[in-house]
Amino acid sequence: MAIVNGGVTAPKGYKASGIACGIKKNGQKDLAILCSDDIASAVGVFTTNVVKGHSLQLTMEHIKNKKAKAVLINSGNANACVGELGYDNAVDITKMTSTILNCTQEDILFNSTGVIGQPLKMDALNAGIPKMLSSLSSTGGNNAAEAIMTTDTVAKEVAVEIELSGQKVRIGGMAKGSGMIHPNMATMIGIISTDAVIEPELLEKVFKNAVNYTFNKISVDGDTSVCDMVVMLANGKADNSPISDESNDYQTFVEALNYVCDTLSKKIAKDGEGATKLVEIAVDGASTQEDAFMMATAIAKSPLVKTAMFGEDANWGRIITAAGYSGAKFDPNLIDIFIGNLLVCKGGVAIDFDEDVAKKILQQKEINISINLNQGTYFDRMLTCDFSYDYVKINGSYRS
Amino acid sequence: MAIVNGGVTAPKGYKASGIACGIKKNGQKDLAILCSDDIASAVGVFTTNVVKGHSLQLTMEHIKNKKAKAVLINSGNANACVGELGYDNAVDITKMTSTILNCTQEDILFNSTGVIGQPLKMDALNAGIPKMLSSLSSTGGNNAAEAIMTTDTVAKEVAVEIELSGQKVRIGGMAKGSGMIHPNMATMIGIISTDAVIEPELLEKVFKNAVNYTFNKISVDGDTSVCDMVVMLANGKADNSPISDESNDYQTFVEALNYVCDTLSKKIAKDGEGATKLVEIAVDGASTQEDAFMMATAIAKSPLVKTAMFGEDANWGRIITAAGYSGAKFDPNLIDIFIGNLLVCKGGVAIDFDEDVAKKILQQKEINISINLNQGTYFDRMLTCDFSYDYVKINGSYRS
Repeated sequence: MAIVNGGVTAPKGYKASGIACGIKKNGQKDLAILCSDDIASAVGVFTTNVVKGHSLQLTMEHIKNKKAKAVLINSGNANACVGELGYDNAVDITKMTSTILNCTQEDILFNSTGVIGQPLKMDALNAGIPKMLSSLSSTGGNNAAEAIMTTDTVAKEVAVEIELSGQKVRIGGMAKGSGMIHPNMATMIGIISTDAVIEPELLEKVFKNAVNYTFNKISVDGDTSVCDMVVMLANGKADNSPISDESNDYQTFVEALNYVCDTLSKKIAKDGEGATKLVEIAVDGASTQEDAFMMATAIAKSPLVKTAMFGEDANWGRIITAAGYSGAKFDPNLIDIFIGNLLVCKGGVAIDFDEDVAKKILQQKEINISINLNQGTYFDRMLTCDFSYDYVKINGSYRS
Repeated sequence: MAIVNGGVTAPKGYKASGIACGIKKNGQKDLAILCSDDIASAVGVFTTNVVKGHSLQLTMEHIKNKKAKAVLINSGNANACVGELGYDNAVDITKMTSTILNCTQEDILFNSTGVIGQPLKMDALNAGIPKMLSSLSSTGGNNAAEAIMTTDTVAKEVAVEIELSGQKVRIGGMAKGSGMIHPNMATMIGIISTDAVIEPELLEKVFKNAVNYTFNKISVDGDTSVCDMVVMLANGKADNSPISDESNDYQTFVEALNYVCDTLSKKIAKDGEGATKLVEIAVDGASTQEDAFMMATAIAKSPLVKTAMFGEDANWGRIITAAGYSGAKFDPNLIDIFIGNLLVCKGGVAIDFDEDVAKKILQQKEINISINLNQGTYFDRMLTCDFSYDYVKINGSYRS
């Protein structure tokens, strides 16, 4: 597997664009599209929030036929909680886009991210969409990645190349965070493209597995938003022999896709609002999968654990406390806790560890916290970030 | 009902003391006791955390006989996760105290609050306990309230006087917060005293109801700790006719007890670590009690809602988002949201409200957010605080 440039436009047969159309007050890019030359297979996972943005609701209908030509995103406005107008606007936008791209309305997936409760600026979008489509380019991935950002501080993209039975196949991806990131999906948008030839059913299987182990393991602040989705297009332009689920090609493709999703997920967690560190919480030895998940989640969400990471303080008491209220069943007298590779608590009892060693581990930009419950064989993990002054600063006045 | 001075020593037949014995490095008070002249009826509620402090474990055994003479608290060290030594130390401490107070070991309730994973300084306690007991005083409530503080910025106490069939009866209380406050119980300790004559079973009933609607409705950061408890002693020194559950006296007593618990709860939430505002989240019109509870809790825990309160930003999109992921069942097209008495979202749709009016409401020190789901008759509420820079500052380096 080789890392390549180009993000979502790295695979064959994709063009993208990202422009500023006037939704964001500060004049930054706010309108993006990824467009496949031909109709592609499409799969997606969407927020579990009861409240769903109007654009997202439309996309969840459009993707039912498992096909799409383009994914359109605006940032700066979530198009949520504005009543029927929001849905009507989303319909108009996909209609206009499909007319220009000469496809059906259902072939356009559309999502919006940003502030809730304000109508989309349709004037800006009506003028912006044709302009954006006229600048579609096979090197436009980076512009698109920039245009989907909200409070993100860096654009997030990655692409890889693999060989399947002698044929070169690529997978590209872009994503945006960065606050309100939490399973399932949060204010997060991820878009993955591939030129692989793969059956729609198999695509759905490998995509959902990859998302479950990567995007769904990110928690920035425990809030899940109303517009979140990860979608993937596969246009078959690589002309490889169709991937079957018993071949070596299958394994190679799965690993590459997992790498793309994992890389984007880590970029999102690391760029959590105000984050200074990426923190991975791993729980092993649980009696059930659910126990491992609940405990990793509770620790990753704990503001006290996250502020301790910011303060580079080896306060494992907060870790065991979060474990204890997580809802997971475990024997507190068997639990071991590691900060990096340093054992700080064994069998539920404090270890007299070297504070200087702990400090050095916590000064790193990437920190691993691992818990072994010594009860069973189940494992899960969560990616999160620390909680800093800047988190409060960014979120104390996001709307204004 | 009249507000009176004296805190936990306001009712007849109680003495208290609070001293610095050397557990806290900064020399502040760290050892407190409330002592009834005679053995009192005792009830308590305790943390639901799987991991429990050693002192708390002992107290949960001692209270099984529903009697106690004294409640002893040390602050600065949670006596948790130190292995068998922690439990043995707790036993030694209650043994020493009961010998001096001339009662049985089971009559002493003992709890510890502070850092996890460090053994208690037994030298300091062995010297401190006799010293503290020699300074027991019927006006010692305030000293005790100070000695149970950890990161609290103010001591928290209240007392009221009521008349039951012509007899004066008092209820006093003290509590400590302030981070890690969340149902059920958190790093929170509450101690209530009364001189009322009341049957133990009835006491248990009214106490648990009061706690459920007050202390269990506080959330500062969603973390629940390993040492938390609220206990209540009733020593019968007021000589009132025993309270029965069909009398007017009963209603008067319940209201007074609820007032004491509610006052202490609000003091805790308002003094949440780094808090600048008390925020009450009320959810009405839910289809079930569980739905109302889940939604109030999710909104009260949301870091995005709490930072918006700090920033005095009427960002109700974060409120509806938290409602949506709370797990509560509701129709997003029926939800109304109020900030103070200002309607900002009706039927799930944004209202064009006056931002200046909203700003004025959010500048207050106490903010009410209310949600009406317009689906049923169930109501619940949570008390919380905003999330400020100081929360991060306080918790980034609590241990050191």
